Amino acid sequence: MLKLFEYNWQVRQDWFNWCQDVSEEELLKKRTGGIGGILHTLFHIADVEFSWISGLQGKPEFTDPFDSYASLQKVKDLSARFHNEIRPFVMSWTPEMEFKELSELTSKGETVIFKYGEIMRHVIAHEIHHIGQLSVWSREVGKFPVTADFIRRGLF
Amino acid sequence: MLKLFEYNWQVRQDWFNWCQDVSEEELLKKRTGGIGGILHTLFHIADVEFSWISGLQGKPEFTDPFDSYASLQKVKDLSARFHNEIRPFVMSWTPEMEFKELSELTSKGETVIFKYGEIMRHVIAHEIHHIGQLSVWSREVGKFPVTADFIRRGLF
Repeated sequence: MLKLFEYNWQVRQDWFNWCQDVSEEELLKKRTGGIGGILHTLFHIADVEFSWISGLQGKPEFTDPFDSYASLQKVKDLSARFHNEIRPFVMSWTPEMEFKELSELTSKGETVIFKYGEIMRHVIAHEIHHIGQLSVWSREVGKFPVTADFIRRGLF
Repeated sequence: MLKLFEYNWQVRQDWFNWCQDVSEEELLKKRTGGIGGILHTLFHIADVEFSWISGLQGKPEFTDPFDSYASLQKVKDLSARFHNEIRPFVMSWTPEMEFKELSELTSKGETVIFKYGEIMRHVIAHEIHHIGQLSVWSREVGKFPVTADFIRRGLF
């Protein structure tokens, strides 16, 4: 499971590098599908990973709106800060944690129970899914997307 | 790892169901990014999963072109057939298989070595990534995409 987190972190960094050559107008442009924009998607990915992993540690989630972070440097800084905070938990994951339970309150006030292993996989799939959307939008910008390959990344 | 395969298989089935209400013209329409079309993407996902998992079992990969399968029913049938063939291998995965080696010949005639665990994660990420592309195109069709959530699927 850790390898897929490492993959996501590497791919996210590749996308931040990809963004360097793209105008802020293109990065902020409203697009069809998903969260609706390139930079907003990268913000959303970092936010969701941080908020769930914080939840697993009994810490509060992140609730700031994207508006306060609408520049490449700000999203990169936020993602790096979040990464430092959640990395130790992810790296110390053990199979015994799979079925630990997390209680969440829905907007309707109902209690839902998730397993820790379920949340970890949710976070992994969440990032890969949104990166797939970036790969479509990259063509609208006229640039090749970052490779989504897991192989040839030195992860094994 | 198996849970992420089960997730992918469930999501793929949801997308096949989603396709039922969409015209074949929309399913075959050439689109920007990825493999360039909805049905072609679902074909490609099934093909890549089957070909890599076959490779891990020392069996030949699949090489038929999409043209021979350009209808919803044909892609569904192919995906179901592939699923039956590869499922036993995936379900019998054990951690000892992680670092087994697979030798592949590149188009330049060079030998590359992959680890079995590397290929398994490559296959998982490959499907989730391409499904992310479908979620953007679904908006072009004017339909809500299938949810990409791992949680609330009864997988835990």
